[in-house]
Amino acid sequence: MDNMNLNKHISGQFNAELESVRNQVLVMGGLVEQQLTDAIAAIHGQDLEAARKIVANDHKVNAMEVAIDEECTRIIAKRQPAASDLRLVMAIIKTITDLERIGDVADKIARMLTDNANKPQPPLVSLENMGRRTIKMLHDVLDAFARMDLEAAITVYKEDDKVDREYESIIRELMTYMMEDPRTIPQVLNVLWAARAIERVGDRCQHICEYIIYFVKGKDVRHTKVDEINDLLGKP
Amino acid sequence: MDNMNLNKHISGQFNAELESVRNQVLVMGGLVEQQLTDAIAAIHGQDLEAARKIVANDHKVNAMEVAIDEECTRIIAKRQPAASDLRLVMAIIKTITDLERIGDVADKIARMLTDNANKPQPPLVSLENMGRRTIKMLHDVLDAFARMDLEAAITVYKEDDKVDREYESIIRELMTYMMEDPRTIPQVLNVLWAARAIERVGDRCQHICEYIIYFVKGKDVRHTKVDEINDLLGKP
Repeated sequence: MDNMNLNKHISGQFNAELESVRNQVLVMGGLVEQQLTDAIAAIHGQDLEAARKIVANDHKVNAMEVAIDEECTRIIAKRQPAASDLRLVMAIIKTITDLERIGDVADKIARMLTDNANKPQPPLVSLENMGRRTIKMLHDVLDAFARMDLEAAITVYKEDDKVDREYESIIRELMTYMMEDPRTIPQVLNVLWAARAIERVGDRCQHICEYIIYFVKGKDVRHTKVDEINDLLGKP
Repeated sequence: MDNMNLNKHISGQFNAELESVRNQVLVMGGLVEQQLTDAIAAIHGQDLEAARKIVANDHKVNAMEVAIDEECTRIIAKRQPAASDLRLVMAIIKTITDLERIGDVADKIARMLTDNANKPQPPLVSLENMGRRTIKMLHDVLDAFARMDLEAAITVYKEDDKVDREYESIIRELMTYMMEDPRTIPQVLNVLWAARAIERVGDRCQHICEYIIYFVKGKDVRHTKVDEINDLLGKP
């Protein structure tokens, strides 16, 4: 049902262009998901080689953002989309900004690992767990985006609560660690920044959920409470 | 010269709509600037009443973002802008996202102050200095936006270097403070988050500079080096 509008242009160049730009978003999303997955795996293995590869790859994500953005502006100028087509293009323009920032998080984790190399390590297990949860969120929101699936988007949206709780607990853990051994403060701060960045991935996945809701429902739900977003499912 | 395209629609409803939405951005920018100014002033005076007012006002900034965004989408659908008109609308859509996030920074500083109330305070003087520098950047970039002034935008862009250096020095200062008295770690972390948030204001002002450059030059300079941005001034 939610795909109805996506299938409206049953033929023609415009349809092909919209499909192509949608696919580019999914390719970009796939790359960002890979970068984040590699970064979280690198935490586990303390893998500096992998970390350096992630940093080197970040420019690809940036280039995709710029290319997709340009293509969207071109489509608006040339095709003058209206209604749900325009909402799709607007949703894409916003989604790629958040995807690019999630790419930056992978880059930041990788830099944290190289900065902290060969220094006493604070516990990183909880960071990995939170990281894996955000990878799952990103994966699921890209899936919801591919199908413009309202229900799936709302499910992902609500997941962020768990990320926030894990984040709070990591901060407490790292705070205790610093208090017990103040010499580790510089390294622990690096880990704190990485934790903060990972927590932001959850927020950014929520943003993408909001754009999906905007596309499907034509309603801007940014800055709305989770209850109201939940209500959208009940209202056809 | 840079205003050339702004004056193209010498009459008509379309012109009025573009002007109106541009003005709304400046009003939103003014409110955000006020919120940030109040937040930095509240740091100085440890003013909890002011801090609470900032938190209570944040929803106004959010509402303006949503309203301007809606208006821009409406203009695209109804007026089918092309060339520099479309670039203006796209620049506005992106600018308001960054303005809203700067509003969040004011909110975050205010919350830091209330969280840390009546607890031993780490030095906040450097935070204020950095804060004042970012207020100046925000003020100047809004000014550049109002006139779509390429040269002014590039000047603001380059200011962020100083913010970054101040930020590094604040982090070192706060790190020393924590190491000397680990009991203060929880409060200092609150200050660290605020410092980080203020540092991000500089980045967000840079983003707005990039949108101004995009409007004036039709060139997407995100993820480009400062040298290349500088070169734009030389090339008519």
